[in-house]
Amino acid sequence: MTTPSRRDLANAIRFLAIDAVQAANSGHPGMPMGMADIAEVLWNDYYSHNPNNPKWFNRDRFVLSNGHGSMLQYALLHLSGYDLSIEDLKHFRQLGYKTPGHPENFMTPGIETTTGPLGQGFANAVGMALAEKLLAQRFNRPEFQVVDHRTWVFMGDGCLMEGISHEAASLAGTWGLGKLVAFWDDNRISIDGDTQGWFTDDTPARFEAYGWNVVRGVDGHDADAIKQAIEVALASSNKPTLVCCRTTIGYGSPAKAGKESSHGAPLGADEVAATREALGWAHGAFDIPQALRDGWHAGNAGLVREDQWNTLFDAYAAQFPTEATELTRRSHGELPEGFLADADAYIARLQADGPVVASRKASQMAIEAFAPLLPELVGGSADLAHSNLTLWKGSKSVASDAADANYVYYGVREFAMTAISNGLNLHGGFIPYDATFLVFSDYARNAVRMSALMGAQAIHVYTHDSIGLGEDGPTHQPIEHLASLRYIPDNDVWRPCDAVESAVAWKAAITRHDGPSCLVFSRQNLDHQARDAAQVAAIARGGYVLKDSVGAPETILLATGSEVGLAMQAAERLGDSVRVVSMPSTDVFDRQDEAYRESVLPRACRRRVAVEAGVSDFWRKYVGLDGAVIGIDTFGASAPIKPLMEHFGFTVDKAVEAARALA
Amino acid sequence: MTTPSRRDLANAIRFLAIDAVQAANSGHPGMPMGMADIAEVLWNDYYSHNPNNPKWFNRDRFVLSNGHGSMLQYALLHLSGYDLSIEDLKHFRQLGYKTPGHPENFMTPGIETTTGPLGQGFANAVGMALAEKLLAQRFNRPEFQVVDHRTWVFMGDGCLMEGISHEAASLAGTWGLGKLVAFWDDNRISIDGDTQGWFTDDTPARFEAYGWNVVRGVDGHDADAIKQAIEVALASSNKPTLVCCRTTIGYGSPAKAGKESSHGAPLGADEVAATREALGWAHGAFDIPQALRDGWHAGNAGLVREDQWNTLFDAYAAQFPTEATELTRRSHGELPEGFLADADAYIARLQADGPVVASRKASQMAIEAFAPLLPELVGGSADLAHSNLTLWKGSKSVASDAADANYVYYGVREFAMTAISNGLNLHGGFIPYDATFLVFSDYARNAVRMSALMGAQAIHVYTHDSIGLGEDGPTHQPIEHLASLRYIPDNDVWRPCDAVESAVAWKAAITRHDGPSCLVFSRQNLDHQARDAAQVAAIARGGYVLKDSVGAPETILLATGSEVGLAMQAAERLGDSVRVVSMPSTDVFDRQDEAYRESVLPRACRRRVAVEAGVSDFWRKYVGLDGAVIGIDTFGASAPIKPLMEHFGFTVDKAVEAARALA
Repeated sequence: MTTPSRRDLANAIRFLAIDAVQAANSGHPGMPMGMADIAEVLWNDYYSHNPNNPKWFNRDRFVLSNGHGSMLQYALLHLSGYDLSIEDLKHFRQLGYKTPGHPENFMTPGIETTTGPLGQGFANAVGMALAEKLLAQRFNRPEFQVVDHRTWVFMGDGCLMEGISHEAASLAGTWGLGKLVAFWDDNRISIDGDTQGWFTDDTPARFEAYGWNVVRGVDGHDADAIKQAIEVALASSNKPTLVCCRTTIGYGSPAKAGKESSHGAPLGADEVAATREALGWAHGAFDIPQALRDGWHAGNAGLVREDQWNTLFDAYAAQFPTEATELTRRSHGELPEGFLADADAYIARLQADGPVVASRKASQMAIEAFAPLLPELVGGSADLAHSNLTLWKGSKSVASDAADANYVYYGVREFAMTAISNGLNLHGGFIPYDATFLVFSDYARNAVRMSALMGAQAIHVYTHDSIGLGEDGPTHQPIEHLASLRYIPDNDVWRPCDAVESAVAWKAAITRHDGPSCLVFSRQNLDHQARDAAQVAAIARGGYVLKDSVGAPETILLATGSEVGLAMQAAERLGDSVRVVSMPSTDVFDRQDEAYRESVLPRACRRRVAVEAGVSDFWRKYVGLDGAVIGIDTFGASAPIKPLMEHFGFTVDKAVEAARALA
Repeated sequence: MTTPSRRDLANAIRFLAIDAVQAANSGHPGMPMGMADIAEVLWNDYYSHNPNNPKWFNRDRFVLSNGHGSMLQYALLHLSGYDLSIEDLKHFRQLGYKTPGHPENFMTPGIETTTGPLGQGFANAVGMALAEKLLAQRFNRPEFQVVDHRTWVFMGDGCLMEGISHEAASLAGTWGLGKLVAFWDDNRISIDGDTQGWFTDDTPARFEAYGWNVVRGVDGHDADAIKQAIEVALASSNKPTLVCCRTTIGYGSPAKAGKESSHGAPLGADEVAATREALGWAHGAFDIPQALRDGWHAGNAGLVREDQWNTLFDAYAAQFPTEATELTRRSHGELPEGFLADADAYIARLQADGPVVASRKASQMAIEAFAPLLPELVGGSADLAHSNLTLWKGSKSVASDAADANYVYYGVREFAMTAISNGLNLHGGFIPYDATFLVFSDYARNAVRMSALMGAQAIHVYTHDSIGLGEDGPTHQPIEHLASLRYIPDNDVWRPCDAVESAVAWKAAITRHDGPSCLVFSRQNLDHQARDAAQVAAIARGGYVLKDSVGAPETILLATGSEVGLAMQAAERLGDSVRVVSMPSTDVFDRQDEAYRESVLPRACRRRVAVEAGVSDFWRKYVGLDGAVIGIDTFGASAPIKPLMEHFGFTVDKAVEAARALA
């Protein structure tokens, strides 16, 4: 083989995918076979990266929103020189290898975001492109485009059918994210077959309606046409671009090309052989000739690219040392020096001042206190700024070109909002927060799960946290949401009981770099609780003794958020033998060592009553079969808070009764 | 006052809304003030209903997707003669009255669906319009259009920003739902202010891209323009219509019209007075002069309308008695005679045959067995028909004009799918089922909650129910989902352990007319379990003794689904003192009487081990602090099922160890 053709290069992707899926006896060959030509042109001619350093900050970002085609991405990474071996590819979808069924950002170098849940990768990419835009506005100087890279997305019909594609595309259009380029794999096949039965949108017209630059009718198997389309995309500075690529799923397979049978199952040995024949691929399974490897290798070019950028950055640092230091700090995800001390001082001050406010207000106070110290804090709300209280004095819309733009008016788009938060954080340089009513975390739920799975530091602010929101009624009153969010692995949920716990929750969310936090706040005012310094420090452990019994506790009252005040009043009535445990974060408390947990909830004391305005069964893990729970296991109702709380039994009387009724 | 003008009639809505919100000191006056003129024209000139019988089957359906404007709908219902008194309106948003903060289908006559969670009402309406189309195809005869009504939707910018609007509009376009008419309240204001900062879509162009008929630029305060637009909509037989109404939020308020300040708070006493002045409304709060009441009253016209239809229906019944009886049965939501006996016979046969299949396959077998008896069963999948196994021999796409069309190719649109299920059921005549992977119930979650809140009989089929799905990896492996779905009030979750339990779960879902069921099935094959007739009957109680101990149990193993087989093997090893409880539905079990629950889980036996491939803490409600749970509290991984199950500890050895380790 002399110089390989573009088609040869693309076929290397195809056969790595075909052979890996065949070896795994599971997976999705059709998409990699269909998008190989597009990927080849993009990665070999345009994609700006350095395989030797997958974390190089100014790299382009590549997102495979149709993540079931993971073998496409693994083939690209392997061929261009990332630390992903042929052994990994041979062990596609096996335990202990870096080639899981869907791309996982925490397993494989070069994977920017975990994809698979359709549409979310696209929204992550919008977040990444927004991150680039904001950092460029903040840090670039006329001679120094130190932040200057593109975000490329592959997406399929499935991504485009999902509602989140609407939300994310609309925002990208409004924000004019010119460096975002999405390739639509228009193969007219989804799992159930020919999409004409269920997907008849005029997608190009739809994206034009969002203010996108749309390149129609590109032959996704013609390298020249793909290049031309990309050039059109590069020329669009103020609009994101959708490149509509007409492709054939399973391209090259004589029997399965253009059919859903190539989508999600191995081609089968015979069809693999027939495809080798049809595409003139004479090489064995996982055998990539050196000429093709040479044609793909991007390591040297990557080194040169990063070196050039380093030179640029050094010159920038010489002229703008403050900015360079700050950009480096933010790109490393480090908090500013002194932040922790400042935060602790603020918390101590709050404990001394004892403001009686709604915890959503306390949240805003915490943002107001911390945000001036943290330019990386970028956040917003799904059209509930004045309810979620997410605006602070320094808020400036990201729709502007301001260097210090930091506030996102997401509109009523909870799902894309949350996935964009994930993208902002995964890009680097930002600690994102987003907000809606707790009940509407439902709309965003899988993106919260993805924050947790990916270890993305995204702060999800959820206000109006119980039936205590009152008149809006059961559609707006969370019941099962606290428990359901706590059950998402690696997700830290906080429900603070006063302004002090609220500030501690915010501090915990800001310092937790390896995962998301859900900060859950009340609509209504909450009492301030007295604490000594040790108790203030113990809040960070998720659960602590807020009021202790004289001697070993005979009864323990556990509560969170708005019910802590109620528990304290009940304890007052019940007498000296009662301990009150405030449990703002069960997730964090459960991670404490056994000794600490025993010190808070001694095994010997089984007379336990939990009080929380949410599903009661969640609390059985702390009160067991012998304790009592005051919770709510039905939907709420529309009424002012006072009659509502009484109606559903959240009263001091009930708590006292429940405690007294225990054996 | 002589004959009231259209504006006078509309002002009656405005002031009922203004005054009710003022009295409640809470609520949303801006939307009713903005959409009053549109509502007046629609309800007085076009809306085909009978206030005396809100359940008249051939009525038009009206959906207020922007449900925060509930007072608009209450005013319409009150004025046109529904059983909704002025006292109810005076007690807007108070406990014990039929005027909750958002419209609730189970509280107020004339409310077709609960709205508030934005975008879902629109998707419900698509389901209702689909129901009408399917019933018309099935039952109408050339001379007898016995099913012939429209679905009208009001929607705001918020609905249109939500992703679900994309999914639902796309399907409505594909299905050509000509009798669906949506009015867009284009007031350019959402809660955060002028929408130009976050909502710049060209919405008319977007809907044209979905294949809708779009009427642009209608002055929403000009009755003639509104009438003209509706006439255009009526002329569209094969496309749904979007009427784009330019309106002023808070119309009539001198200080707050056109501003977000009118959206979600009372106008305030001074501004209420100023608005009275500006609109020339001389009447006191809640005072509607008789001439206006006469202008609105629709009771007599409604009686005539229903009488005419009854006459038509009687003639139809004379000529097509079978169809008439069947339509009546279905509109009453009654099961066909003999269904229960047939279902029980099928279940008994399965118990005798003992097929070893995946429970998703058992689900398909149940559909295959039951669907021929139940033409009201209409269902589909979000592009996973061959994974969810939702197709049966009689499936025929609803995109066709076939009289027996019954299968919905939803495409990858889980959220709209689920909300459309709700609409199909709320319309009447259908028991809908929908399907996706269990993990993607997340995408649909709030619509599942709405099924439960509304008491809609929607059957949500969720397959690939644990890490047992294997290679697709953690994005596709549910962990917290079972527990999270169980915690939704009034939602029945079933996770059957074999084909027999699967059929019982389907039967339970079909016979449960007052709420949803989530049927959760495995990807992998499951053992068949031996049972006597009493045990087969006990499955319907949600939990039962599958294998009893000799004498009182010393240890109880509880399990569901794929882990029941494992528990049975562990019990075999542990010996005679062990009882195994199969718990396919904790929701149903928890509703059983105390005596039954005690007979299954005797209080005295605390040596309890629960086994389920989901979050462990959920099971503390049954095993308490002293029992053990074999569950999974981390994300899964990509690998074939066997190594995966071993890796995460779902083995007989672990269950045996856990039981032996108990004190």
